[in-house]
Amino acid sequence: MANAMKVGLIGFGNVGAGVVDLLQRHAGLIASRLPRPIEIKRIADVDTQTRRQCEYDPAILTNDTESLLNDPEIEVVVELIGGYEPARTFVARALQAGKSVVTANKAMLAKHGADLMAAAPKGAALLYEGAVGGGIPIIRAIHQGLAANEIHSVRGIINGTSNFILTSMETRGVSFDQALAEAQKRGYAEPDPTFDVDGTDVGHKIALLASQCFGQDIRFDDIRIEGIQSLTPTDFAYARELNYKIKLLGIAKRESAGAPVEARVSPTLLPASSLLGSISGVYNAVEIIGEPIGPTLYYGQGAGRKATASAVVSDLMALAAANGRIEDGIGPRFPVGKKNLKPLEDIETEYYLRFWVTDKPGTMAALSRVLGDQKISIKSMIQHGKDRAKAVPVIIITHTAREGDVQRALDIIRTLEVNKAQPFVLRVEEN
Amino acid sequence: MANAMKVGLIGFGNVGAGVVDLLQRHAGLIASRLPRPIEIKRIADVDTQTRRQCEYDPAILTNDTESLLNDPEIEVVVELIGGYEPARTFVARALQAGKSVVTANKAMLAKHGADLMAAAPKGAALLYEGAVGGGIPIIRAIHQGLAANEIHSVRGIINGTSNFILTSMETRGVSFDQALAEAQKRGYAEPDPTFDVDGTDVGHKIALLASQCFGQDIRFDDIRIEGIQSLTPTDFAYARELNYKIKLLGIAKRESAGAPVEARVSPTLLPASSLLGSISGVYNAVEIIGEPIGPTLYYGQGAGRKATASAVVSDLMALAAANGRIEDGIGPRFPVGKKNLKPLEDIETEYYLRFWVTDKPGTMAALSRVLGDQKISIKSMIQHGKDRAKAVPVIIITHTAREGDVQRALDIIRTLEVNKAQPFVLRVEEN
Repeated sequence: MANAMKVGLIGFGNVGAGVVDLLQRHAGLIASRLPRPIEIKRIADVDTQTRRQCEYDPAILTNDTESLLNDPEIEVVVELIGGYEPARTFVARALQAGKSVVTANKAMLAKHGADLMAAAPKGAALLYEGAVGGGIPIIRAIHQGLAANEIHSVRGIINGTSNFILTSMETRGVSFDQALAEAQKRGYAEPDPTFDVDGTDVGHKIALLASQCFGQDIRFDDIRIEGIQSLTPTDFAYARELNYKIKLLGIAKRESAGAPVEARVSPTLLPASSLLGSISGVYNAVEIIGEPIGPTLYYGQGAGRKATASAVVSDLMALAAANGRIEDGIGPRFPVGKKNLKPLEDIETEYYLRFWVTDKPGTMAALSRVLGDQKISIKSMIQHGKDRAKAVPVIIITHTAREGDVQRALDIIRTLEVNKAQPFVLRVEEN
Repeated sequence: MANAMKVGLIGFGNVGAGVVDLLQRHAGLIASRLPRPIEIKRIADVDTQTRRQCEYDPAILTNDTESLLNDPEIEVVVELIGGYEPARTFVARALQAGKSVVTANKAMLAKHGADLMAAAPKGAALLYEGAVGGGIPIIRAIHQGLAANEIHSVRGIINGTSNFILTSMETRGVSFDQALAEAQKRGYAEPDPTFDVDGTDVGHKIALLASQCFGQDIRFDDIRIEGIQSLTPTDFAYARELNYKIKLLGIAKRESAGAPVEARVSPTLLPASSLLGSISGVYNAVEIIGEPIGPTLYYGQGAGRKATASAVVSDLMALAAANGRIEDGIGPRFPVGKKNLKPLEDIETEYYLRFWVTDKPGTMAALSRVLGDQKISIKSMIQHGKDRAKAVPVIIITHTAREGDVQRALDIIRTLEVNKAQPFVLRVEEN
C-alpha cells in the first residue's frame, strides 16, 4: 500500500467533525477507490476540550495551528473555520508552503480566492466543492463535465434557509417574521440569520459560480444584492394568481462570449411549472445553460454536516488520486483582474412592481404614465382591493425594461401624492 | 505549446460531426483550459463521400480503420459507431494497443464494458460520459463528486423519446400510437423506435449506472425490462386522478451496502409533485441517493448531436489534462464477475394494477380475494365505468408487495370468468 496522504484539518466544528466521521465510517469504501489512503494527521481548533461526535484520537487535536502548518508531512490542509480571518491567513500560509488546500469557505473565496490562487506555487491546488450547493458536485460539473461549453448563464437557489422561509410563506401564507421564527425553531436558520436572508450568502456563492463559469475575476463586491426581508404575504398571493413562484436567485449571465456579465442576487418570480420554481424547502438547485449542452440542472442538499462532508471528502479523494497536487488541467480558475461586468443600470429584465396607493380614479393612469414616460411597457396590472378609505396594493408586471429606467420611474412615483408606501420591486424570469 | 493530443475518430455520423464541429468552434476556449491542444488526426467511416456539416480536411477521412488503429501517434480513439460490432472489436483493439478510448456506446458498454476494461493494459482509459444522459455529467458525478458516498439508489428518466411520448399521452390524452407518430414526425423517434419504447435503451443505461454506482458487474442481461407500448389513455386518466405521473424509469437500488441490488426498467407511477415526475418532453434526469449526501438530481438534454458532443469532448479534455492516460484514481470501475442481484420474485414495490372485468356484483370481491390470498394488501381501488353490457376498467393500487406474489395473483385472475383482458401492471414509487 502506498503511503497515506497526510491531512491537517483546521476547524473542528460541525462540518469538521462530519469530515472526520465520514473518513472513518466509509474508510473501506474510500480506500477501495484510491491508490493511497487518506489520514487525518492533525486537527487544530481553539476548542480542544469539547468531545466531538465522531471517532478520533484526542492526541491529534491541538490549538497550535502553527505546528500543523509547519508540519512538512502534511500535504493537504482542510480549512473549515469559515469567515474571512484567520481562515484567509491559514490558507495563504498552507498554499505558500506548497500544500494543497480544501475548503468550504465561500465568504473567503468570494473575496480572496483569486489572490490566494495567484500567489500559490504551481501544483498547490485550492479545491472547494463544498463552498457552493453543499454536496452537489457543481464546481466539478463546471470545470470538467461542462469543460467544452461556452456558458451563457448560471442561476441558483443556493441558500437553504431563505428557500425554507420562502416555501413556508408560499404554502402557509405566513409573514416573513413568522417563517423565520419557524426556521430557527427547526434549526434551519441561525440565531443571527442576517447573511442568509439579506442575500449575502447567495452573493458569496454566485460570485464564485460566476467567476468559474465565465473565467473572470468576479468577486463578492461585484454582485448587486437584494434579500427577502421585504416580501409580504401579498406578494405570494399575487404571485400565485399570476402562476409564479418566488425564489431567491443568484444569477449571472451574459448575452454572448464577449458581452458583459450581469451578476446579482434577486428575489425573483419564476413560472410555477419551471424546475427551479419547484425546488422547495432547504434544498438547493443550480441551473447552468451552456453551448452546446443546453440547459442543465443540479439538485441536492445545499448545506449541513453530511452533505458538506461529502463534498470536502470528494476533494480529498481527488487529491489522493492525483498524488496531492494538481498541476494542470481543467480545475478552478481565478484570473486576477480580468472582468467585464454589466453596469447595474443596464441590466434588463422583467419586473414585478408592488405599490400601495390611494384607491381613487386616475391612480392607475398616473402610475402607467410615469412608467410609459420611462419607456417601461406594462404586461399586466392587478388591483383587487377596493377601499376608498385607505391604501390598496397595485401589482404591475412589466415587459423587459432597463434597471436604470425602472429606478428613475420609482423615484418619480415616490413623489406622487397617491403613493402611500415604498414601492417594492421583484425581478421576473420567464423561464 | 506542448504537443497536441492526437485523436482518431471512428464513426463520422451525426454525433461524430458534432464532436469535430465543437472542437473546431470552441478551439480557443478548449485550448485555454488545457495544457495541450486536442487534434483530430484521422477519421474513419465507411462513407468517405458525403460531406458532413462541420469543418474538416477531407484528406483525414478514410474508410481504412486499420490505419487509424495502427497509427502510433494516435493516443486516443473516439468510437461513435454505436451498436455491438464492429464497435467492440475496434475498442478492444485500441485499448490493447495502449490507447485510451472515449465512447458514447451504451449498448456495447452494457454488454462488454467490464471485459474490455479487464483486458486493457494499465493506463489505457475507457471514458464514456456521453453514454448516459447525453451531456449531463452523471458518470463524473458518480465517480468523483459522490466518490465518498455509499450509494443507495439510482433512478433515471434516461430515454428522451419515450419521455416525449409519455408527456404527449399525459398532456393531450392521445394513444401510444398517435404519440409515437408525432414523435417520429418531430424527429424525436427513429423510424424503428423499438429500443426506445420497449425499454432496451433504458436497460443499457441503467446497467451502466448500476455497475458504476454499486461497483458490481451488472450488465444488460441482468436488467428486468418493461416498455411503454401497453400504456393506454385510461392509465393516464387514472394516474391523474390519483395525483401521479407515469414515467419510464431505470431503477437500481439496494437496502444497504451488502444487500442484493434490484435493477429494472419499469413504467412507473411517481407523485405528480416529485422532481422526477416533473421532467417532461425529451429531457433526461437522474436521481442518486447516497450516504451521506442524501438525494441529488442531475438534469439536461439526454441525447442529440450537441449534448452528446459536449460529453465526448469533456472526456477528451480530461485525457488531455492527464496526458492521455488515466493510471489511477476515481474513474470508471467494472469489476468482472462480482455481483449480487436480487431475484426478480423478491423485488418489493407498490403496484398499479389495471383489469378489464365484467361489471357485475361480486367482481370487486373476487379480485380482492385473490390479492388477499397472496398477501397483497390494497391501498385504493377505483371503478368509474358502469356498463353491464361490456367490460370496464378496475384500477387497484397496492401497498408494498412482493413481485412473486403479484405474478401469482395475476396468474389466478387471468383464469377468472370476470376477467376480460390481459391484466396490466405498473410500479408505483411513492417519492
